[in-house]
Amino acid sequence: MTAPTGDAGATRATGGISTSRLEAFSDGIFAIAITLLVLELKVPDIGEHGALWPALRHDWPQFAAYLTSFLVIGTMWANHHSMFREIRRTDRTLIFLNLLLFLWTALLPFTTDLLATYLRVGGQASHVAAAVYSADLTLCAIAFTVIWAHAVRARLVDHDMDRRQQRVSILRFGAGTVVYALTFGLAFVSAPLTLAVQFAINGYYCFEQVHPAAADGTPPR
Amino acid sequence: MTAPTGDAGATRATGGISTSRLEAFSDGIFAIAITLLVLELKVPDIGEHGALWPALRHDWPQFAAYLTSFLVIGTMWANHHSMFREIRRTDRTLIFLNLLLFLWTALLPFTTDLLATYLRVGGQASHVAAAVYSADLTLCAIAFTVIWAHAVRARLVDHDMDRRQQRVSILRFGAGTVVYALTFGLAFVSAPLTLAVQFAINGYYCFEQVHPAAADGTPPR
Amino acid sequence: MTAPTGDAGATRATGGISTSRLEAFSDGIFAIAITLLVLELKVPDIGEHGALWPALRHDWPQFAAYLTSFLVIGTMWANHHSMFREIRRTDRTLIFLNLLLFLWTALLPFTTDLLATYLRVGGQASHVAAAVYSADLTLCAIAFTVIWAHAVRARLVDHDMDRRQQRVSILRFGAGTVVYALTFGLAFVSAPLTLAVQFAINGYYCFEQVHPAAADGTPPR
Amino acid sequence: MTAPTGDAGATRATGGISTSRLEAFSDGIFAIAITLLVLELKVPDIGEHGALWPALRHDWPQFAAYLTSFLVIGTMWANHHSMFREIRRTDRTLIFLNLLLFLWTALLPFTTDLLATYLRVGGQASHVAAAVYSADLTLCAIAFTVIWAHAVRARLVDHDMDRRQQRVSILRFGAGTVVYALTFGLAFVSAPLTLAVQFAINGYYCFEQVHPAAADGTPPR
Repeated sequence: MTAPTGDAGATRATGGISTSRLEAFSDGIFAIAITLLVLELKVPDIGEHGALWPALRHDWPQFAAYLTSFLVIGTMWANHHSMFREIRRTDRTLIFLNLLLFLWTALLPFTTDLLATYLRVGGQASHVAAAVYSADLTLCAIAFTVIWAHAVRARLVDHDMDRRQQRVSILRFGAGTVVYALTFGLAFVSAPLTLAVQFAINGYYCFEQVHPAAADGTPPR
Repeated sequence: MTAPTGDAGATRATGGISTSRLEAFSDGIFAIAITLLVLELKVPDIGEHGALWPALRHDWPQFAAYLTSFLVIGTMWANHHSMFREIRRTDRTLIFLNLLLFLWTALLPFTTDLLATYLRVGGQASHVAAAVYSADLTLCAIAFTVIWAHAVRARLVDHDMDRRQQRVSILRFGAGTVVYALTFGLAFVSAPLTLAVQFAINGYYCFEQVHPAAADGTPPR
Repeated sequence: MTAPTGDAGATRATGGISTSRLEAFSDGIFAIAITLLVLELKVPDIGEHGALWPALRHDWPQFAAYLTSFLVIGTMWANHHSMFREIRRTDRTLIFLNLLLFLWTALLPFTTDLLATYLRVGGQASHVAAAVYSADLTLCAIAFTVIWAHAVRARLVDHDMDRRQQRVSILRFGAGTVVYALTFGLAFVSAPLTLAVQFAINGYYCFEQVHPAAADGTPPR
Repeated sequence: MTAPTGDAGATRATGGISTSRLEAFSDGIFAIAITLLVLELKVPDIGEHGALWPALRHDWPQFAAYLTSFLVIGTMWANHHSMFREIRRTDRTLIFLNLLLFLWTALLPFTTDLLATYLRVGGQASHVAAAVYSADLTLCAIAFTVIWAHAVRARLVDHDMDRRQQRVSILRFGAGTVVYALTFGLAFVSAPLTLAVQFAINGYYCFEQVHPAAADGTPPR
């Protein structure tokens, strides 16, 4: 609780957490969140004389939501690595912002379940559920952008950028956030469409990962 | 989102994920999925005057399914390591295909629960449940084969093979997929038999792991 | 079970567990506990004609409790690393005390659920639930202090302190425990206020991490 | 599926899994299993006018069982490390036996829940539940002994022992198994007593870890 001084203090400002340690902790959370999604899948109760196959088909929203969130978390994991390959140092703010990202990521099994439950019910409830789901993904995208903005400005990345280059890099990185924000509006039009668009966006991102440092032709290290 | 160029671009195409990182993430998912299986086991409710031992014996399908899926995931973990001992480089497609494998692996606690629930009910529902379970395992086997085929063709493995050797290696690796596909058909004959055969297959694979590169007498590195 | 003798015995007293291994195991438990919190969030059942958004707003206690416990575990993770950056050696007592810390940490998904459930009910039950929650956090803080006290006294840390410096360092480290103990009393005044104060305390700690060794002006290594 | 020959084959017999990799996977499973225990704890439902504190006290069996199983898995984790500090090489049988150990370890959240549920019910059901719990712990102890016996006989450990020394080391290691087997008998006398004895045994082992190689005065490396 005392303010450390001098060089030792500078090192200590990281809270003793190296990027590799931060990445290992992050990998753990991504791996657990992606695997916990399965717990939201419910075995249908078909009673005495029911048929299982129609019951499973009837439950398509839970499988569609599982698939989409799986893709979302998988893509986030890959992007997190891309980003931390550029980030060489940590500071306390970075650690805090990274926790903020996981606050929204770890929430995904819940928002996925919410969407799966009310997608089939339809009506107003499905719009609210889709909006909450889209809001969660938008908050993840904002957290990613804020992490990158902080890393660039606090010079935690390993290549020099002037002010203008920094701004371009952050803007470029944050562009994806706008896409997620648009799906929030789409939620009030159609919940199934929202899910389909999220699937498409993340499928695209999974193949075409964001290259944060490539802005402005700066050759990456 | 810009296309990187030159050598730096080639490195970056991996999304910044080394094989060791990919393996650590994979290990995490295997460890979580294998441990989550236990959450599908339900403590029997024997009411006021019931007997616990007969109730547990009556629940044999959930224990048989737990045991089989445990063996399945354990075997996949061991085989994944065998495979990645040969793979030296990653590219974006490999990362995506690996995620595809985990999509089906992480689903196993659900398909196991489905099979355990309807195995005792019997009839048509048990056939559907066994078919879904076998389909999940077949999709895992296909994902494994596709990963290996991509690694061999994109020369991510560490030994030279000519076209014919590549083909032999992939075919040999994919042979197991046929076995799983056959259990899919078996599901419509008998659900308990399907589970027993899955147990036997994976018991065999657990001891006799697939050696992907040993095709055609090519000495492994 | 035999007492080993000599130098080899001294090494072996650690139970073969290096600090890096202990930290990796600890990271795993923190990552799992923080991600399991989401399983306590329940999708509201709004019946046939209910509205989802009011139902979610009505469930605010579960989201407030999720947020607070997320911050608590995130802060503990960061502090655990700060602490183990100073600790260079392990012994059997340290391993045991570390397990004690995780006994209380791993309990948090339950105590969080308990608080979320009875916060809305109000009355005496909400006070008991808040007291149990505060007791859990206090026990975590005590475990942290005991770990540090043992590490300082058994000279597992990497800088020399005389008796007085040791005492100052331990007292300083343990100061936070008093704050948690006070929230235990607060629980019997107001459960929502207790949660709000826990949120504030951990938000503060998250930014202002405890620096165990900085006591008495001793320059950290 | 072909039998590899020569030196390369010998290396490959390990399935490409180093002891460090096996330990990391094992650490993951221990960390997940110990944290999943909390999911078996149920928030009491006290109705409209009930009191929470008596309801929690009434649920003491679930807390006692949680505490004991936490100690059991914590102790197993520490012992697993002690053991693998001596084991320098892996082979396929070792990997399979290690999976066998995790089959029983990962089952603990279920057997713990079973014991907690029927401990309060009492009567014959509590004896059966305690016997199943003790059987699970005995199977863990047997798996540990079989792993060590295989490692010693297949010369995977790093110090030379003649036949007699091997036998002494294995017998000494396996002695704990007898203790667990006795608790199996105790289950039919009293379920609460069985739990108390398990707690005491594992508390003792946690402090006094087994030193596998110390048999017969052989100085450990």
